[in-house]
Amino acid sequence: MPDIIHRIGVENATPEQVYTALTTLDGLAGWWAEKTTGSTDTGGVIEFRFRVGGFDMKVLAADPARHVRWEVVAGPDEWLGTTVSWHLRQEGDYTIVLFAHEGWREPVEFMSHCSTKWAVFLVSLKQLLETGEGAPDPRDLPISDWH
Amino acid sequence: MPDIIHRIGVENATPEQVYTALTTLDGLAGWWAEKTTGSTDTGGVIEFRFRVGGFDMKVLAADPARHVRWEVVAGPDEWLGTTVSWHLRQEGDYTIVLFAHEGWREPVEFMSHCSTKWAVFLVSLKQLLETGEGAPDPRDLPISDWH
Repeated sequence: MPDIIHRIGVENATPEQVYTALTTLDGLAGWWAEKTTGSTDTGGVIEFRFRVGGFDMKVLAADPARHVRWEVVAGPDEWLGTTVSWHLRQEGDYTIVLFAHEGWREPVEFMSHCSTKWAVFLVSLKQLLETGEGAPDPRDLPISDWH
Repeated sequence: MPDIIHRIGVENATPEQVYTALTTLDGLAGWWAEKTTGSTDTGGVIEFRFRVGGFDMKVLAADPARHVRWEVVAGPDEWLGTTVSWHLRQEGDYTIVLFAHEGWREPVEFMSHCSTKWAVFLVSLKQLLETGEGAPDPRDLPISDWH
């Protein structure tokens, strides 16, 4: 099955700080969707709401400063049952973030869109941690007619 | 084999204009690498040079306003023999760009980096056409210790 994979390095941020941005409502609202509610504990469900649509993610794993894994339990058909994972490690002045959105059934055009859009939000995560200011929905960078 | 796929929409630009940015040295230098030389004709080889390293692309196909396809004939080991393709079509006020970098042997960490970096350069392509100003190397947005 085709996967979306990405890599960014967040400068002068520790894995603990990146982990906090992935596992707290405030952190997630700072780079992905301002409207983020729910529970970020393992087994909990986080609700992300965008100008158009949204996703509910069940937290499958949350290993402090190292690994986070979600399963999509509500959202667009193409996303249902897919998983989103984050691996963190320190390398010099950077925290390296390895991202994967796996389990897509087909490499449809919507997957191409999501691949680009994930990259834009990863840059937003990086900027939140480096400058204190991310670009979450609805202040995110539009990349097309699909936003 | 794993692929990198992306989708952007360039607003108020025709497929012809996007095609020009993909098939002229000036166009390519405006969003990807300022140091771009060579021949952009079918069968020609384009040399892209970055602060660190570079790629030579053989032009396999150039179908005006619709499709461009390159093969990597020199560059990092992981890129050798891979292909980069662009499909263009008009949709309302947008030119939709479907991008694919195919033929990777393994989903190595460098592929994750390239996936994110391609997205950043696609946004640069979009901005070049929408605003007249892209962000090619060496003025590109750094995403990590790997640039």
